[in-house]
Amino acid sequence: MTRKTMTIAMNGVTGRMGYWQHLVRSILAIRADGGLSLPDGTVVWPEPVLMGRDGEKLRVIAARHGLDRYTTDLGAALDGADIYFDAQLTGVRVPAVRRAIAAGKHVYVEKPSAPTLAEALELARLARDAGVAHGVVQDKLFLPGLRKLRRLVDGGFFGRILSVRGEFGYWVQEGGWQPAQRPSWNYRAADGGGIVLDMFPHWRYVLEHTIAPVRTVYAQSATHIPARVDERDETYAATADDAAYAVFGLDGGVIAQVNSSWAVRVHRAELVEFQVDGTEGSAVAGLRECVFQHRAGTPRPVWNPDIPSEHRFLDQWQPVPDNADFGNGFRAQWELFLAHVVRGTPFPHDLLDGAKGVQLAELGMASAAEGRRLDVPELAW
Amino acid sequence: MTRKTMTIAMNGVTGRMGYWQHLVRSILAIRADGGLSLPDGTVVWPEPVLMGRDGEKLRVIAARHGLDRYTTDLGAALDGADIYFDAQLTGVRVPAVRRAIAAGKHVYVEKPSAPTLAEALELARLARDAGVAHGVVQDKLFLPGLRKLRRLVDGGFFGRILSVRGEFGYWVQEGGWQPAQRPSWNYRAADGGGIVLDMFPHWRYVLEHTIAPVRTVYAQSATHIPARVDERDETYAATADDAAYAVFGLDGGVIAQVNSSWAVRVHRAELVEFQVDGTEGSAVAGLRECVFQHRAGTPRPVWNPDIPSEHRFLDQWQPVPDNADFGNGFRAQWELFLAHVVRGTPFPHDLLDGAKGVQLAELGMASAAEGRRLDVPELAW
Amino acid sequence: MTRKTMTIAMNGVTGRMGYWQHLVRSILAIRADGGLSLPDGTVVWPEPVLMGRDGEKLRVIAARHGLDRYTTDLGAALDGADIYFDAQLTGVRVPAVRRAIAAGKHVYVEKPSAPTLAEALELARLARDAGVAHGVVQDKLFLPGLRKLRRLVDGGFFGRILSVRGEFGYWVQEGGWQPAQRPSWNYRAADGGGIVLDMFPHWRYVLEHTIAPVRTVYAQSATHIPARVDERDETYAATADDAAYAVFGLDGGVIAQVNSSWAVRVHRAELVEFQVDGTEGSAVAGLRECVFQHRAGTPRPVWNPDIPSEHRFLDQWQPVPDNADFGNGFRAQWELFLAHVVRGTPFPHDLLDGAKGVQLAELGMASAAEGRRLDVPELAW
Amino acid sequence: MTRKTMTIAMNGVTGRMGYWQHLVRSILAIRADGGLSLPDGTVVWPEPVLMGRDGEKLRVIAARHGLDRYTTDLGAALDGADIYFDAQLTGVRVPAVRRAIAAGKHVYVEKPSAPTLAEALELARLARDAGVAHGVVQDKLFLPGLRKLRRLVDGGFFGRILSVRGEFGYWVQEGGWQPAQRPSWNYRAADGGGIVLDMFPHWRYVLEHTIAPVRTVYAQSATHIPARVDERDETYAATADDAAYAVFGLDGGVIAQVNSSWAVRVHRAELVEFQVDGTEGSAVAGLRECVFQHRAGTPRPVWNPDIPSEHRFLDQWQPVPDNADFGNGFRAQWELFLAHVVRGTPFPHDLLDGAKGVQLAELGMASAAEGRRLDVPELAW
Repeated sequence: MTRKTMTIAMNGVTGRMGYWQHLVRSILAIRADGGLSLPDGTVVWPEPVLMGRDGEKLRVIAARHGLDRYTTDLGAALDGADIYFDAQLTGVRVPAVRRAIAAGKHVYVEKPSAPTLAEALELARLARDAGVAHGVVQDKLFLPGLRKLRRLVDGGFFGRILSVRGEFGYWVQEGGWQPAQRPSWNYRAADGGGIVLDMFPHWRYVLEHTIAPVRTVYAQSATHIPARVDERDETYAATADDAAYAVFGLDGGVIAQVNSSWAVRVHRAELVEFQVDGTEGSAVAGLRECVFQHRAGTPRPVWNPDIPSEHRFLDQWQPVPDNADFGNGFRAQWELFLAHVVRGTPFPHDLLDGAKGVQLAELGMASAAEGRRLDVPELAW
Repeated sequence: MTRKTMTIAMNGVTGRMGYWQHLVRSILAIRADGGLSLPDGTVVWPEPVLMGRDGEKLRVIAARHGLDRYTTDLGAALDGADIYFDAQLTGVRVPAVRRAIAAGKHVYVEKPSAPTLAEALELARLARDAGVAHGVVQDKLFLPGLRKLRRLVDGGFFGRILSVRGEFGYWVQEGGWQPAQRPSWNYRAADGGGIVLDMFPHWRYVLEHTIAPVRTVYAQSATHIPARVDERDETYAATADDAAYAVFGLDGGVIAQVNSSWAVRVHRAELVEFQVDGTEGSAVAGLRECVFQHRAGTPRPVWNPDIPSEHRFLDQWQPVPDNADFGNGFRAQWELFLAHVVRGTPFPHDLLDGAKGVQLAELGMASAAEGRRLDVPELAW
Repeated sequence: MTRKTMTIAMNGVTGRMGYWQHLVRSILAIRADGGLSLPDGTVVWPEPVLMGRDGEKLRVIAARHGLDRYTTDLGAALDGADIYFDAQLTGVRVPAVRRAIAAGKHVYVEKPSAPTLAEALELARLARDAGVAHGVVQDKLFLPGLRKLRRLVDGGFFGRILSVRGEFGYWVQEGGWQPAQRPSWNYRAADGGGIVLDMFPHWRYVLEHTIAPVRTVYAQSATHIPARVDERDETYAATADDAAYAVFGLDGGVIAQVNSSWAVRVHRAELVEFQVDGTEGSAVAGLRECVFQHRAGTPRPVWNPDIPSEHRFLDQWQPVPDNADFGNGFRAQWELFLAHVVRGTPFPHDLLDGAKGVQLAELGMASAAEGRRLDVPELAW
Repeated sequence: MTRKTMTIAMNGVTGRMGYWQHLVRSILAIRADGGLSLPDGTVVWPEPVLMGRDGEKLRVIAARHGLDRYTTDLGAALDGADIYFDAQLTGVRVPAVRRAIAAGKHVYVEKPSAPTLAEALELARLARDAGVAHGVVQDKLFLPGLRKLRRLVDGGFFGRILSVRGEFGYWVQEGGWQPAQRPSWNYRAADGGGIVLDMFPHWRYVLEHTIAPVRTVYAQSATHIPARVDERDETYAATADDAAYAVFGLDGGVIAQVNSSWAVRVHRAELVEFQVDGTEGSAVAGLRECVFQHRAGTPRPVWNPDIPSEHRFLDQWQPVPDNADFGNGFRAQWELFLAHVVRGTPFPHDLLDGAKGVQLAELGMASAAEGRRLDVPELAW
């Protein structure tokens, strides 16, 4: 058994996702299991160096988990590190990643990898030219519901896939009579808010890695709730879009119609659901569950306004069994990335793939502004 | 008590809808109840003259229901009639209606009132100039689910309405291994088929009479199933669109995203469902049922990929009680039209309103071809 | 971070409520969480000085919780204290509070603040003149059920509020064959017993802070169980009222009908329930739960004695979701009071507000004696 | 077997209650069962003479049920009749009953027997002096729920009865967006509307025949919904009270607190419920069901705000079994009255008893106006 320590500078572990999903549920959980065992017998031991802007918070986190390395200084964090991980706010990510690449570190970053396509592409090229490993978090792909959907695709269940319907959203409280469950900057355009920028990168990798590449986009966006109440109980103008109604054209003539909204009440089983229809069968996947209907079980309804429908349509779908233990999705992707760094195994979620998400967000906003369907060009390195 | 007989030339009663919904469930049902009693004491007695292209079929129908007047000749049918009703195939409707108006008859027709906007407008203008009463069937408005939805709108339940999601469709069997449940002409463009032409007129009046007028349209259409098997068990090319993914802009900034498809499996309670979201509450209406969620009962979900959602979202909706007897919707509209003819009571579903449906279908097809959002101009008489 | 220690003389911590709710669940719980953090970064650290009449009991409590300061002497307790808290029997509260105010201490007291309105007002005036902070416990306002009800009011759920129905009570065992679950002095008028004196102060602040100020009162009281068995197993004459049937008139024409009884069996979900009906909707709140019915879901029952009702009325109500963590209500009010003392933030539950409760109890008893509805005058300082 | 035909002039059978409950469900149902068999073997055969103001409606009703006697003329109806029954609107009842008594007919009338106490007493005295049998409909006493409650009283279940809580009401739609389910005259004072006048007569006989005579009354009334929409879709001012909050004092110190409202949403199992508490046990009766809790099963709850109640209070009640077939209540009282007429068996529901209901309504309105509790004097013939 070879033991290989990978020192990881983890920037942004004072944020909710950085702390909980990446540090606690991924890196610390791998350590608690004795490290990551690779098929060749190597055990990868991740050694985090905590980083953030608030030294006191870092001290508390380090103490709580018995860690001894933390710093507010990027140079100090990179010194001796193998990997640089970035979960900061998008606005400050680019210079830090640039510096890490320049220092020859492998880089792994939260999505979106940059606020603009130009910067996202720049980071991808820099990483390629520097010869470092690079990756972008694409957590939803690793959730049980989408993994079961992917299993159906891989098994040829659908026949020819015809269409996808995606419905994402919930009611984000406006604040005031009940506090909002998301931060106010999400609703201010100047602060990088907006649902297109937040969610289209997700839809890009979900569609591309599960169904087919995205070739065209039409989006209509809206700010349904123009005034909200912030964390200090003050009313502010919501300037960013809080809903987007999109139609994506995919390879093979597949149409993916996807709604995203923070101003919709949930009339589904889960916060996001994708329905995929194919010639042989259909499925509906959420974050955790996935149900399917094969064409052998497809009814033949005839519309009759005089009587209640004889069909109980929702009962005509069956759950896809788990048949596997689905661990935490963030950890699963971390393990893929660590193996990629250490052994060079494939890792399709690289900075170029991440740049595609930023591209789709930018094209979505352009389409909404221009009122027309736009082509999604192939990204050239 | 005054008794007023209205003779109605009913053209197309040999078809499924013409026979079952218009003749049996509407006109004959009114007769079985002793006629239609108006508030002023007048009783309207409808006297049908059956008309169609197959004289033998007409004879059988007349005999079955104890009727003695039927003919295959339009002139004979119009002779002595007060009202001309047309439920023929759309392709042959215009000349017949033109002739009825020229003969000074009131006209009531199935939707779409004409295959093109130009003809639909022409009929509307002819009827207006002739001073006859005129109307178009808009049956979905009179279904229990949509009437309960309308009740919520009228009662101010929604606060400001933000958005509408419409999902219509089911799997129309391709034929062959299982016979199709719709006629093959529906899938041939040359025969007036296509889901845009069929369904957009419905969406127009549903949106306009329930929520707000439609001001813009974006549509992306597809022919998901390119080959089908017809009534004679022969494979044919499906040339018409069998799915359309649309985004409508309504007055007041409301966005209505509506999917229509004959190539989708039903993962809903009913064949069509509309979700309406407003600042104060939301509702989901099907053909018969309608459920709602007031904001007092709106949850505050926070996304956590580690655990199954603590919410059973579908249980957080409540049915709108009937609180009324909803009769057959076709009959309800017939009664409104008869009262309009006899007493001049309001009837907003006239030929101009019907022409708007054809307009939206035409604009929908143009938008799909051009790949851009189109304005919906006000219709001028 | 500023740390500010507040020394609190806690008189009456040997009683059930004083010990459990105020000391353990409030003050000690705040300490266990590291003190109370205010928005400006200040951390308030409460330092209790235990006080009561039984020194040995105090010693035991102090030892159990690792506290070192306790005394049976009021002067010693006040010495060095910032706040005086009083949870003694009502009969001995006034002189102690008077003395604390004279010593310049902030005062926080259990309800009722005094046995008579005159004394309650006197305390309020003394505190105002001394410039100290002052407050009265109004715990029911901070219970989850009533907070959810208040949320509905704040959100405008009810439209115009029409009426309130309150039902409080349970069967207090008469003693003898089963021991009573309340002390015998509650049933002796001479000892300050009686349900009007006990509960009307609660109804006053619940109605006033949740719905609207109380303007008139009608009360009919009764001693349903005239003889009870006391703690020493001796029968005694119950001289105080054990039930009161009241009708309160509130601002805006709202009528609040409230029954209070220790001689009623509980045919409800909780020990107290308030039903609020408004033009737009209704709700029923208990101590922990709150259900609502919007007018969109209101049935239209017609009375028909021949058949069982077609409605399952209780199923037509929906729970208000928590959408928040509701901690202990006593602690929540303690935190508001401490912030008020330290930072001057608003605290509407002051001694004048508390005096209103005593006022309503006195007027309730007068109304019961005179058999007529009485006005509730505005309280003048 | 003696067969005795009783001819009954039934005035007001064109109304909903007169037709359905009195004619169809009572008189015709008795005939369908071969008449009413008395214990002495006599069979009473009721022979109705239909009467009303609309001759055409009478003709239709007579034809439908194969009856041949109907008239719009009171003199003709009384001619040859044994019994005069009156279910007209209250406003026109008195002169008709007066005339029937003068003609020596037995009289049986709907409640209230007259619009004023003076007239109600006058009718009672006239009937007594004329020596005819007389009665007033008190249908609620004959409903299954109240009969089971009465059974508990008769069986000594309650020990000493302490109190009664009555809750009656439901939401009467305001009209407009949903039609009202009660006629508009109910909400106009000038037309004899108002809930006190409608319901207090019911409460009088229910309390008096089930629990104890009513000795005092306090009532507070309100018009919660000041504007409604009538049958012709026109808004009108609601001038009559639509809610009344009453406290009745009964013999033996029993207090009966009874709310009546047409502006309340139903949070109970039935449209009306009475809870009766006694020293030995309690019960809650609706129109059809009745549940009870004996003191052996009474819990001993202690209030603890920290945790949800350990008790599921509603599960601690048990249904009173039917143990009998409860037929239609109107018919049951008809049978008692017919036996009273034919055989002189007791019938406590006479015109004097009916006058007490009018008395309580008048005193209730006076109490509401004066704001004080009023004594209910014994009615002297």
